[in-house]
Amino acid sequence: MSKLRVQCFTLSLDGYGAGPSQDLANPLGVGGRALHKWLVETRTFQRMFGGDGGSTGVDDDFAARGFDGTGAWILGRNMFGPIRGPWPDEAWKGWWGEEPPYHTPVFVLTHHARPSLEMRGGTVFHFVTDGIEAALRRAREAAGGRDVRLGGGIATIQQYLRARLVDEMHLAVSPVLLGAGEHLLGGLDLPALGYRCVEQVPTANATHYVIARGE
Amino acid sequence: MSKLRVQCFTLSLDGYGAGPSQDLANPLGVGGRALHKWLVETRTFQRMFGGDGGSTGVDDDFAARGFDGTGAWILGRNMFGPIRGPWPDEAWKGWWGEEPPYHTPVFVLTHHARPSLEMRGGTVFHFVTDGIEAALRRAREAAGGRDVRLGGGIATIQQYLRARLVDEMHLAVSPVLLGAGEHLLGGLDLPALGYRCVEQVPTANATHYVIARGE
Repeated sequence: MSKLRVQCFTLSLDGYGAGPSQDLANPLGVGGRALHKWLVETRTFQRMFGGDGGSTGVDDDFAARGFDGTGAWILGRNMFGPIRGPWPDEAWKGWWGEEPPYHTPVFVLTHHARPSLEMRGGTVFHFVTDGIEAALRRAREAAGGRDVRLGGGIATIQQYLRARLVDEMHLAVSPVLLGAGEHLLGGLDLPALGYRCVEQVPTANATHYVIARGE
Repeated sequence: MSKLRVQCFTLSLDGYGAGPSQDLANPLGVGGRALHKWLVETRTFQRMFGGDGGSTGVDDDFAARGFDGTGAWILGRNMFGPIRGPWPDEAWKGWWGEEPPYHTPVFVLTHHARPSLEMRGGTVFHFVTDGIEAALRRAREAAGGRDVRLGGGIATIQQYLRARLVDEMHLAVSPVLLGAGEHLLGGLDLPALGYRCVEQVPTANATHYVIARGE
């Protein structure tokens, strides 16, 4: 069956997934960009934004795994944008411009209904108001047998982990201290939820971990 | 000047320094031993307990750094033993038998006075009741120009970090999930305290990080 996967989710050495003080100018929070050095330098990432070059090797292999076989995405609302509460209008179309890097249906969790939004390059944002299980069901249908990628943010990943719905989670830990922000793993008892670390692959820029649910 | 150093302090991937449910049978908490695989397999560790063999290489280099140039240790009381409150008698002499692996003066932080305790092999336990700065001052004097090693536990390391008294901290992150226990870095804002990560060295068993205070 198609898997629900977290891929390329980057944490600081002190466990934060986004820097403090997120806002429109710093959607990853202050210092959050330094976190993603391992990813930004890869060929996969460079090509995603129309660039040439970029590194190959382990970091790039993990970056590519994030897209291979992905048929749909799920995002928490804060990943889609900084707006809280009811949508004031339909002007906000995500952080990514007219052609977002998803190229698949993307299911955005929200409490506030909004019509679907078709973007260039195959990305269609659907707004799901009836919870994480409904979003996963719809994403699986849309993915047509391929995997569903759970993009984040942290609160959304935690919800899916607590419900034991994540099949596999790739984390990259960067050698960076953020000091504050949102903590992914503190307060989650992953072993009690059936998860264990099944792979550790270090590079010069990060250490990659794959966490999976056992039988 | 002699440095105050944390060395070989091991954290799980989810940030815990000791497993849940510490007790006499499991002084590192449940699952805590799996954390220390990188260390237990080294030549330095094997020799410390009279064994032959053990690995050389990066893990062993970090293990050896933990003893090279160390002239005194500081330990929190819970590292010394499981007894809480006033000492009922002087029967408890630490977890390590008659010849502990320190071979230097060791300053144990406690609220309850107790006479110093001389062990075989050069280890002398001194019980310090007037706080972390007094313990550091006495340890520096005893170290005679060599470094002072801060052994732990987590609450003790956090106190010294908050007081900006730690000069260097080597952490080893093991690819193990513990799920609960004592969290070292969550709740500490290391960048605000002047610390940054200055070195990342991965091995098959752990990723080593060195954190230091900038100028």
